[in-house]
Amino acid sequence: MAMKKKPVTGMKDILPREMEIRDYAIGLIKETYKTFGFTSVETPAVEHIENLSSNQGGENEKLIFKVMKRGDKLTSAAQKLVEAGNDSDEGAGLDAGSLADCGLRYDLTLPLSRYYSNNANDLPSPFKALQMGNVWRADRPQRGRYRQFMQCDIDILGEPGIIAEIELILATTTLLGKLDFKNFTIRINDRRILKAMAAYSGFAEEDYDTVFIILDKMDKIGLEGVKEELLKEGFNADTVEKYLGLYAKLVNDEGQDQEEAKVSGADKAKLSIENIKSIKDTLGDYLDEEVSDNLSTIITSVEGAKAADFGISFDPTLVRGMSYYTGPIFEISMDEYGGSVGGGGRYDEMIGKFTGQSTPAVGFSIGFERIVMLLLENDFQVPGTGARKAYLIEKNMPAEKMQKIMALAKEERDKGVIVNVSIMKKNKKFQKEKMQEEGYTEFVEFFADRDF
Amino acid sequence: MAMKKKPVTGMKDILPREMEIRDYAIGLIKETYKTFGFTSVETPAVEHIENLSSNQGGENEKLIFKVMKRGDKLTSAAQKLVEAGNDSDEGAGLDAGSLADCGLRYDLTLPLSRYYSNNANDLPSPFKALQMGNVWRADRPQRGRYRQFMQCDIDILGEPGIIAEIELILATTTLLGKLDFKNFTIRINDRRILKAMAAYSGFAEEDYDTVFIILDKMDKIGLEGVKEELLKEGFNADTVEKYLGLYAKLVNDEGQDQEEAKVSGADKAKLSIENIKSIKDTLGDYLDEEVSDNLSTIITSVEGAKAADFGISFDPTLVRGMSYYTGPIFEISMDEYGGSVGGGGRYDEMIGKFTGQSTPAVGFSIGFERIVMLLLENDFQVPGTGARKAYLIEKNMPAEKMQKIMALAKEERDKGVIVNVSIMKKNKKFQKEKMQEEGYTEFVEFFADRDF
Repeated sequence: MAMKKKPVTGMKDILPREMEIRDYAIGLIKETYKTFGFTSVETPAVEHIENLSSNQGGENEKLIFKVMKRGDKLTSAAQKLVEAGNDSDEGAGLDAGSLADCGLRYDLTLPLSRYYSNNANDLPSPFKALQMGNVWRADRPQRGRYRQFMQCDIDILGEPGIIAEIELILATTTLLGKLDFKNFTIRINDRRILKAMAAYSGFAEEDYDTVFIILDKMDKIGLEGVKEELLKEGFNADTVEKYLGLYAKLVNDEGQDQEEAKVSGADKAKLSIENIKSIKDTLGDYLDEEVSDNLSTIITSVEGAKAADFGISFDPTLVRGMSYYTGPIFEISMDEYGGSVGGGGRYDEMIGKFTGQSTPAVGFSIGFERIVMLLLENDFQVPGTGARKAYLIEKNMPAEKMQKIMALAKEERDKGVIVNVSIMKKNKKFQKEKMQEEGYTEFVEFFADRDF
Repeated sequence: MAMKKKPVTGMKDILPREMEIRDYAIGLIKETYKTFGFTSVETPAVEHIENLSSNQGGENEKLIFKVMKRGDKLTSAAQKLVEAGNDSDEGAGLDAGSLADCGLRYDLTLPLSRYYSNNANDLPSPFKALQMGNVWRADRPQRGRYRQFMQCDIDILGEPGIIAEIELILATTTLLGKLDFKNFTIRINDRRILKAMAAYSGFAEEDYDTVFIILDKMDKIGLEGVKEELLKEGFNADTVEKYLGLYAKLVNDEGQDQEEAKVSGADKAKLSIENIKSIKDTLGDYLDEEVSDNLSTIITSVEGAKAADFGISFDPTLVRGMSYYTGPIFEISMDEYGGSVGGGGRYDEMIGKFTGQSTPAVGFSIGFERIVMLLLENDFQVPGTGARKAYLIEKNMPAEKMQKIMALAKEERDKGVIVNVSIMKKNKKFQKEKMQEEGYTEFVEFFADRDF
């Protein structure tokens, strides 16, 4: 039977040009985080189905690629399925899921939690982990979104203090700088500030998530849009008024940070610290002073030690979808992308839910595929790639001459030159053109009847 | 529900020490093959079940981790399974496999064939491909053998000449040299020499595979052992006598290459070329002269341009299990491992079987997991890792001092120093001891009330 040539639906073959950029980015990520004291970890692609379905994965749990049991266990599960099918009407409610005992991971957070709880005794404390690996989601296929993609997560487990946030942001921005990204912004907020602003305005705690989902649209629909949507939800008009009053001091009519366009670098950080202070003054006892002080210290420290051209800015409208965040949250905004290329925050309670042992944690997830896409679009040239030479040799080269050619190639390769030895084709001109497209700039020809 | 802490059966969490070596080896592999003009490729971990079950994967096809269909397709397949179960006795012969539409790849060869046939128009010709990636096999779990492991395949597709064999062997041995392996041997043979020796002795072509399986044991059971087993199979005594007569000239009583222990390097290559010539003289028309000449040219060229301390040696007993090989075959023998850490050969007909388009091909598969295991056992130190410093800072450091510390760390990190900034613990002595175990050699302490 002829083979199916295309990859399975929603997955992709990666061609050499993209691989070159991916390999380079992966190398740079490993190298950069290493200088910050992070260590690489790897977990299996396959996880227990019980762990994947433990209600920590949100919507992703519906997108699991399930792996079937094997051998006798599969036979026995299939028989049970048949029996259950007979007892029900027309196979209604058949649980084919009982035939699976594991599945492909849909993120790296759950495997990291399992890894940490399985190996904590052999790991440093705090544990600074870098995990890069593929994850799989049976999403509806769409342009630019694949069912297998690489995630890159950086986490510090076991450190309750803001040194963790500072180190994560510095390491990640250093990486982006090395990849030639400029002019991006780290937007930062704290879940406790979000909550204090809602509490101060008079929202009930059970409504916070609804309020934050609407607030999250600020940069798209502006102050007026947020107001409308909150009122439409039926919230008290005075509460809504008070809430938006807080934000009116901090964002302009389009919902962007005030003066974001005008200021940059140190000024942005300074303005952020003023804004945090003003919020704290307004909120009074609704906000713990340590929270605002810590946020200011994070901003000051990052601004003072940054290794790339970016700004860090307090953004009181930053929500970050996941409700598991407990403290500072942050996101990388890149104008040229028009969205976030990574983000994260503190999630002090999640690992404990997985493992039964409370562990403070901060994590950053880099949008690896987005970054690769941006580099490809910008025609990024991988630096440090030496000269590319092509040796074209005549067919049927005698042994002693072949030996000499390979020795010459060795000398150049030892110096880092890329040397591609190929048999000379009949249409040499076409052969060279093709190789030029691959980046070969120099051609050396060897003939069997000539000395070299 | 509490999480399952262990990885799924037969798979493993990789700890930092091993990851450091893996990352280093992966980087070196990519870098080394790149200087030989190879490009990286990546294929999805998940493949069509039809491709995985196309009878090209041998025993591995029994070990597939099957991935279940999703959504309506799963429901419909489950209903059909129930109906089929009702029609049969006690669910006998239930084909639960019908619930799967894809599976995890068990090797990189099949995905590469699919990749090549899917993308040939966008790929150079010849195509020099490096593919590293995990594969999965539901093998019986056993010590040191895992159900997820990394494979590393290097292939040249579209090149019929021996330049492909020479480049593959040189690139791979260069890599092993960079990993500090010494004194290993590349054993080389040609499937056509194997066949000619069998034909010359009088074996029928349909018996070759049986004969070769026994010949393959030469290094374990010696000449006498091979003779016994061949006779036990019922082969003609004169044929067996004639066959072993050929080998008696080339291997010693223990079945090893003559004088292997005594000679090395250039002498080994010289002896190999003499042996090939002597075999050719004996076999006469049974062996095409081009085959023996080419083998000698490979040996001469590799010996003359090698970048590591190893020998290349003609081994007429080398079989390489897979019957798909069509020309030169080779294997890396390492005494310290007591076995092969990689091997390959020419397989000019396989890709055509997959894709319907004949494509000459040579491949080398490196035993990545074995190599990592050997490096771990040898306590391999990853070179080029700069100094490791730990900054221990007092809790509640004021913002301006925190900024100064991070700026100091940045300066050192820019120079490649690994700087790990941690909060000073109450038991500072214990903290330092633990960090020393992780390789931190220098400690710098920062106090909130002191200048620095």
